[in-house]
Amino acid sequence: MEARSVGIVGVGLIGGSIGLAALRAGYRVYLYDCLASEKLAGSKFRPAVIVADLEELALRSRLIILATPIAALAKIGAVLGELVVVGQVVSDVASVKEPVARALAKALRNRCDYVPAHPMAGSEKSGAEAARADLFVGAVTLVCPELAGDTASVQLVKGFWEELGTRVVLASVAAHDQMVAAMSHLPHLIAALLVRHVAATNSAALELCGPGFRDSTRIASGAPELWADILLSNSDAVKQQLLAFKDLLEEAFTLLSEKDAKKLQALLDDAKQNRDRLSPE
Amino acid sequence: MEARSVGIVGVGLIGGSIGLAALRAGYRVYLYDCLASEKLAGSKFRPAVIVADLEELALRSRLIILATPIAALAKIGAVLGELVVVGQVVSDVASVKEPVARALAKALRNRCDYVPAHPMAGSEKSGAEAARADLFVGAVTLVCPELAGDTASVQLVKGFWEELGTRVVLASVAAHDQMVAAMSHLPHLIAALLVRHVAATNSAALELCGPGFRDSTRIASGAPELWADILLSNSDAVKQQLLAFKDLLEEAFTLLSEKDAKKLQALLDDAKQNRDRLSPE
Repeated sequence: MEARSVGIVGVGLIGGSIGLAALRAGYRVYLYDCLASEKLAGSKFRPAVIVADLEELALRSRLIILATPIAALAKIGAVLGELVVVGQVVSDVASVKEPVARALAKALRNRCDYVPAHPMAGSEKSGAEAARADLFVGAVTLVCPELAGDTASVQLVKGFWEELGTRVVLASVAAHDQMVAAMSHLPHLIAALLVRHVAATNSAALELCGPGFRDSTRIASGAPELWADILLSNSDAVKQQLLAFKDLLEEAFTLLSEKDAKKLQALLDDAKQNRDRLSPE
Repeated sequence: MEARSVGIVGVGLIGGSIGLAALRAGYRVYLYDCLASEKLAGSKFRPAVIVADLEELALRSRLIILATPIAALAKIGAVLGELVVVGQVVSDVASVKEPVARALAKALRNRCDYVPAHPMAGSEKSGAEAARADLFVGAVTLVCPELAGDTASVQLVKGFWEELGTRVVLASVAAHDQMVAAMSHLPHLIAALLVRHVAATNSAALELCGPGFRDSTRIASGAPELWADILLSNSDAVKQQLLAFKDLLEEAFTLLSEKDAKKLQALLDDAKQNRDRLSPE
């Protein structure tokens, strides 16, 4: 297998975008998707090679990235565990690490190194049609080094994501899950609940909403089956976040009840300052 | 005064954008801002006329639109009440109508008609520099007809906002305040609380956030003093919304506790369908 070769299992929005970005970075790219092989051939993914099975993918790829829904990962790991060899590195892009990482690390033990990663980018769109070579440019990728036996494997994954235009931050599996519960899973659930709330309160009002509401709830247009999977896979951390957030709602309720303009403005000021720290679009 | 003349009091993001859009629609435009007169002269607002005081503005404008912060409206209404004459129409663009509309209707009674309006558009940016002629294109404007003595006044305001590219929906003052509490004020508060939550949980994580979090919280970058004013002016309705939303958080907590994948996915499915009904960007 070539040194700069990457095999991608699962060619949806994320897997497809990794493929396009890796092609642009000069990698040899192998794609496998058990549901979409015909659709991929002769498509925008050329010159990536569409392989027929995991065996061929494992034979040709130095780095193997699993980009399937979370529910499929353990099974794929078990199959790959029989195919990979020392020197190859397996990674994934799942939004939740704890349950996934344990299963994959176990399946791949003594066969090859496993380095979980999570590019913090995406879109409310899904599927290979929505894949874009620049999806990851400027994003952060969280990489979890603790399960790898060899630091060279971590370097390989880190270098790959840097070549795709992301800034890599190392985090433990547990820290990853806590962080994304706060900055991705809770906001997703809240966006869905906001839509539910307005639809329930005054369904006609949905058609009057301005750009503020549209942006606030954009992520609620994401794929429901994927997100139910993500939220349940990280349910303990998300529940903690929900409880903490409920406390904040109660604080805000008190400020409004007391008509405390000073504290309310301090809250909004503080939020604005922190929001303005986010990396620009 | 000319039939197609509009005077705008308060030239920030909204007032400035109304001015630019009205110029483009062929109106004679008069601008007054007690804080920014010098800044406006010779600026991008040409050929609008920058007037020196409310008296001159009232003398020249068929339609007068108040676009100042809520806190200033009652006082301006009292001054205008001495200046306007039958045939002129006063409107405003405040995000909360109940307290404002009572005060203005009283100040203007027997002098001229008053028709509150609220274009559902905006930006997290503020100030005249951020004003754009196309800010309102494709948006909805809520117009409250109940305080006007003459339907022609309602027609004038409705026609004006249609010429600026918005779709006009009529609503009572009370219905307006309920609707915006759900679709604008609650989301604003929640966006601010989400930022506060992530900043408090893990401040460094703010710098790792992806585009989802950025969009979810964009409105939290809005002007804090304006929003504290809006939220407190509509605090009863916003408090009702907060309570209802807290119930939804509790429902979601239960679904996660029970690992109820089917109901969770149904919730996300329903949210996606309703979110996809929003007018496109």
